[in-house]
Amino acid sequence: MSISQQLDGDGADHIVISIDAMGGDRGPGAVLAGMAKAVKLHPKIKYVVHGDSTYLAPRIHKRRRLNDRCELRHSDEVVEMSSIPSSVVRNGQRTSMWSAIDAVRNGEAQAAVSCGNTGALMALSMLRLRRAEGTKRPAIACHWPSRNRTGFSILLDVGADIKADEQDLRNFAVLGAEYARVGMGLEMPRVGLLNIGKETFKGRKEIRAANDLISEDAVEQRFNYVGYVEGSDITADAADVFVTDGYTGNAMIKSVEGTAALIGEFLKEAFNYTFLSRIGALFALTSLRRLAKRIDPRRVNGGVFLGLNGTVVKSHGSADAVGVAAAIDLAARLSMPGPLPNTADQHDA
Amino acid sequence: MSISQQLDGDGADHIVISIDAMGGDRGPGAVLAGMAKAVKLHPKIKYVVHGDSTYLAPRIHKRRRLNDRCELRHSDEVVEMSSIPSSVVRNGQRTSMWSAIDAVRNGEAQAAVSCGNTGALMALSMLRLRRAEGTKRPAIACHWPSRNRTGFSILLDVGADIKADEQDLRNFAVLGAEYARVGMGLEMPRVGLLNIGKETFKGRKEIRAANDLISEDAVEQRFNYVGYVEGSDITADAADVFVTDGYTGNAMIKSVEGTAALIGEFLKEAFNYTFLSRIGALFALTSLRRLAKRIDPRRVNGGVFLGLNGTVVKSHGSADAVGVAAAIDLAARLSMPGPLPNTADQHDA
Repeated sequence: MSISQQLDGDGADHIVISIDAMGGDRGPGAVLAGMAKAVKLHPKIKYVVHGDSTYLAPRIHKRRRLNDRCELRHSDEVVEMSSIPSSVVRNGQRTSMWSAIDAVRNGEAQAAVSCGNTGALMALSMLRLRRAEGTKRPAIACHWPSRNRTGFSILLDVGADIKADEQDLRNFAVLGAEYARVGMGLEMPRVGLLNIGKETFKGRKEIRAANDLISEDAVEQRFNYVGYVEGSDITADAADVFVTDGYTGNAMIKSVEGTAALIGEFLKEAFNYTFLSRIGALFALTSLRRLAKRIDPRRVNGGVFLGLNGTVVKSHGSADAVGVAAAIDLAARLSMPGPLPNTADQHDA
Repeated sequence: MSISQQLDGDGADHIVISIDAMGGDRGPGAVLAGMAKAVKLHPKIKYVVHGDSTYLAPRIHKRRRLNDRCELRHSDEVVEMSSIPSSVVRNGQRTSMWSAIDAVRNGEAQAAVSCGNTGALMALSMLRLRRAEGTKRPAIACHWPSRNRTGFSILLDVGADIKADEQDLRNFAVLGAEYARVGMGLEMPRVGLLNIGKETFKGRKEIRAANDLISEDAVEQRFNYVGYVEGSDITADAADVFVTDGYTGNAMIKSVEGTAALIGEFLKEAFNYTFLSRIGALFALTSLRRLAKRIDPRRVNGGVFLGLNGTVVKSHGSADAVGVAAAIDLAARLSMPGPLPNTADQHDA
């Protein structure tokens, strides 16, 4: 019995995630380790795993947590990080990425996860899953730690495309609001448009035009448009959805990830500095571990592709097992009915 | 004897900073408090202070550290945060900002500091100080904590303008490299161009064009061009100067400032969580304070205007005394001959 048949038979409490095991800078080993970790959060999860079966089969077999829940699909080829998306679209039929997306297209899996080349993953997703009605340009959304009541704000686009005109930004607002409504359970999500200041005369031409368009859409699309927001608002309780172009969104997430990692190092150094501070760290160990989890950028790993007929989650290329598990966790939660259940406290390092 | 005469008489060990006391969201009180704080770092500093003398005179008089080192220049008007730059250029002659910049133009002060409206400050600086030869579009540069050997990387533009074409980006590379050479003492600074990936086929048209232009300039302009860099490289030891447009750079610094502040709150919460962790925090108090300083975004406050005939430092509009002191400290260090002396460990909270 195939996994998709099991899904049909057993009802909705099985989640089937399609995994491109070959993408990612750390190779398939990190992906398998992440898959095993995600099982702890979602004991009923099943995987359709795409990649080099000679490599993968014995390694899946060896992992107790994976052995009985994986269906392996062999692919001869891999999309390289340096591959050009348009060439993958033409010649990528035999890659693990193509096959991973097709499992969602065929209804075998509820969502696909890949650590591979973002541009190629988006191009193949558009080709195989097709854009949702009304979407010209899909976007990648990510979660950002926030003081708002859900604990996360949504930023998009973070790299589906390199630029966006006013119509794209308008569409991102609609996609982001819908994601916040379905994924975060916010009935009237607050949407803000990223700009360099709150004044309406500031900003690029396309941003000022988008400001008007989004404002017109708000009522019909059931969101609350709060107008221009600045980068500093993204952690504040100023909006739930932050709209910008893919170049800027990408620079924002990557620079914050880098800086959070640096702060983490500073924290370790601070506690190794003196004998007293090392004793202090011992007393505070549990609290420090909780903090380390909270600021660990790997735990918010996973960009969701919006505007497609199917769910695809892009994991960071350099994700380790913790990062991959977070991306799979996100895909699994998006596959459940209702708002995203919060699994943040259940992750382990 | 005026402060500028004192400067001429006593030689270069006096630093005179021109202060726009009226800009900023927290009002002139925060600016005066910051000025007093900066005196601890630079005991020989003098100020030319611009603003409402009725308000300022008694308050300067009351502060022992300011009383004997300030020359007050009355201005009737203030540039509001909501003022449109072009209108300030036409009608701003009586504002404290105009007067503060003119003190640099007249040679009375080595640098000007303002917490006011960024667009107006840049427009007035261009009008009164003029662009340096070869600069079409000035930029604002800021310091970013980094693992490189100076401890900081330089990011520009962070908001002088809202967009940049390939020629602007090329010019930013030259300005940033020069700043790194003069300000940070790096003989051959490494310059990177921000993009969404390291592959040369990725990115907007103007970024790909800038990649070629900057590459051609590198030898003559004495910098080492490392090519495309990503947001995550800014804290890594990947480059010393990061070039992007003002919209993106602005979003980057503001989102990281917001996130660093949130992490700081998490840190406090973590140590208040249990009785044991509170004891731990007591033991680790000195180390924790050192960490809090290191990740406090107020301490890297201050954007330097590059490409002008004169030094102007823009402080964050919402800067408190600590933030204003950091901006004045930066202006003072830029006014000294040779590479920037490091005062990071001398700041107090």
